[in-house]
Amino acid sequence: MTKTVGVVGGGQLARMMIAPAVELGVELRVLVEGEAMAASLAATAVGDYRDAETVLAFARDVDVITFDHEHVPQPVLRALVDAGVAVHPGPDALQFAQDKLVMRSRLAELGAPQPDWAAVADEADLRSFLDDHGGRAVVKTPRGGYDGKGVRVVSDPADVAEWFAASDGPLLAEELVPFTRELAQQVARRPSGQVVAYPVAETVQRDGVCAEVIAPAPRASERLMEVAARLGVTIAEGLGVTGMLAVELFETADERILVNELAMRPHNSGHWTQDGAVTSQFEQHLRAVLDLPLGATDPLADWAVMVNILGGPAAGGLTDRFAAAMAEHPTAKIHTYGKDPRPGRKVGHVNAVGDDLEDAVYEARAAAGFFS
Amino acid sequence: MTKTVGVVGGGQLARMMIAPAVELGVELRVLVEGEAMAASLAATAVGDYRDAETVLAFARDVDVITFDHEHVPQPVLRALVDAGVAVHPGPDALQFAQDKLVMRSRLAELGAPQPDWAAVADEADLRSFLDDHGGRAVVKTPRGGYDGKGVRVVSDPADVAEWFAASDGPLLAEELVPFTRELAQQVARRPSGQVVAYPVAETVQRDGVCAEVIAPAPRASERLMEVAARLGVTIAEGLGVTGMLAVELFETADERILVNELAMRPHNSGHWTQDGAVTSQFEQHLRAVLDLPLGATDPLADWAVMVNILGGPAAGGLTDRFAAAMAEHPTAKIHTYGKDPRPGRKVGHVNAVGDDLEDAVYEARAAAGFFS
Repeated sequence: MTKTVGVVGGGQLARMMIAPAVELGVELRVLVEGEAMAASLAATAVGDYRDAETVLAFARDVDVITFDHEHVPQPVLRALVDAGVAVHPGPDALQFAQDKLVMRSRLAELGAPQPDWAAVADEADLRSFLDDHGGRAVVKTPRGGYDGKGVRVVSDPADVAEWFAASDGPLLAEELVPFTRELAQQVARRPSGQVVAYPVAETVQRDGVCAEVIAPAPRASERLMEVAARLGVTIAEGLGVTGMLAVELFETADERILVNELAMRPHNSGHWTQDGAVTSQFEQHLRAVLDLPLGATDPLADWAVMVNILGGPAAGGLTDRFAAAMAEHPTAKIHTYGKDPRPGRKVGHVNAVGDDLEDAVYEARAAAGFFS
Repeated sequence: MTKTVGVVGGGQLARMMIAPAVELGVELRVLVEGEAMAASLAATAVGDYRDAETVLAFARDVDVITFDHEHVPQPVLRALVDAGVAVHPGPDALQFAQDKLVMRSRLAELGAPQPDWAAVADEADLRSFLDDHGGRAVVKTPRGGYDGKGVRVVSDPADVAEWFAASDGPLLAEELVPFTRELAQQVARRPSGQVVAYPVAETVQRDGVCAEVIAPAPRASERLMEVAARLGVTIAEGLGVTGMLAVELFETADERILVNELAMRPHNSGHWTQDGAVTSQFEQHLRAVLDLPLGATDPLADWAVMVNILGGPAAGGLTDRFAAAMAEHPTAKIHTYGKDPRPGRKVGHVNAVGDDLEDAVYEARAAAGFFS
């Protein structure tokens, strides 16, 4: 009996579940938002993920519903659960990924290290937070932000006056952490409890968007690796996450780590696992949401490097560049999302693995360079 | 502009092209023989590959036609070429995979080492061959044999009397080679000429069917690796093969290698490349037939071991066994073909890679053991 996984959302994360689904013999169904989505080739339904009837109809006859993104509204998620559908991650977990204030509160309860933060209801609240934190802070809309959107560094409450005006609740103010670098910890957890952690990776952001990832994080001490993995496991268990969890972290000069963001799905910071680990995050997510035993998270080489392809080439299509990139970089693994290039849009990525970090960085960057 | 590859034949080899096609952004279309084939999930047409009109209609608007098997008749292949369709491998190459007598003649012209052989027209011819070769020989029907079918060890011409009666041409008689083991050399070649070789692998056959593969072949000297790779390249070039070529070899006690069989497509003996090499044979085949630069053939670890899943479990479905196999063997990579289990039928395989050969053999065998 073939198991069937229904994925709500047809972006590249759903698309990258196709390959492991085929090999595992898992039937993948995808509810896409429109015809021209990255995962359209596996699409079995087109419709609005905010509409409970659409999602309920899609969920009929699947073994589990999972997601390409965290934007499915709580009432829709609850309707699925009420209808007896297995939903992973479930609504109780997803609320922490959907609302950054709810997440901050829960992480505080768990004792997870995080930046100083406060719910600020108005400009006066924010002024007071700024006064307590050297006059600068990061302000976030609790809901709906991603890839740098809904995040602003402010020194004057007036900088986010329109956010206060538009919001029906408080904003999130966070201490501006003087971090030395950013890290990402990938963890997978099954509904029945098994949990595994990948080696923590270093992520490099440009303009608020992930640009490069190196796994494991260079110069990471054993202690740091352990602390990050344990923190990931604590959060996955404490928040009841099922499937993949990405914990984005700040590392400080004194080697402390602080939780920046969470994502409850395969995440850009884990794409290196496709070619650099025994079990990719996409296979792992399918195994986890089906409550199958999790795969090994061991790296396949000393280093794995991922470089995003952003925006696409100035002239010509993506595929026009394949021949040149492949000719120069036969060890680079090029992954494309089937999306039309637009400035700043993630349209693919390149992985390179090997036992020499400089080589792997060079190969991944140089191959990606042909596409943007 | 997305490139489109049309695959004639819907078995597991076509199915295993799906994963790399998705990541490369290649559109895969598959002409399947019936509804319930391994690659049915990518099927875009159902029909008879022996019918020129069916195949010509399927070939419309694809960039290249390739194959899951070598059984498409020459007139159909020629009709494709005449219609201006790019066909890889082409009819001139495929004739050598379709007729073992034609192959033996051509390999002799190329000076490739092979067992003594003869075209035997009748029982008297075969008697004479037997007399010259110690009274025993392997007799093969030149066309249509696979996985041990159409192959018989004989000591009396009467053993194949019905083959002579049914055949409209001579049979192939081959010396019974006193081989110490069997090897397989994978090579890929582009239409424009680039050719790459994988490390030669050891294959273990049971009842004429591939059971296990170890790559690289244990205890293989550098000289053997080089000779095998060079032989593979010579054959690919000499026969004009495009796409993947598998050369099945006998190794003798004095470290000679002799060509046993050829396959012009991804082959069971190369499945280890999915998890054990930078570029899998399925990705490589797509790159080769599209005339894209070939990927690196480097192994990802010291050893890769592949064990076939034959026949399926005595009770229950394949997927019932996943949980047990995955729980015990988190490093094993299980690949399933979506086929109903039947005795002796290949329904999947397991790859294990690592730097310890005994561990990898154990993991692959033990994980596969849950399924058969």
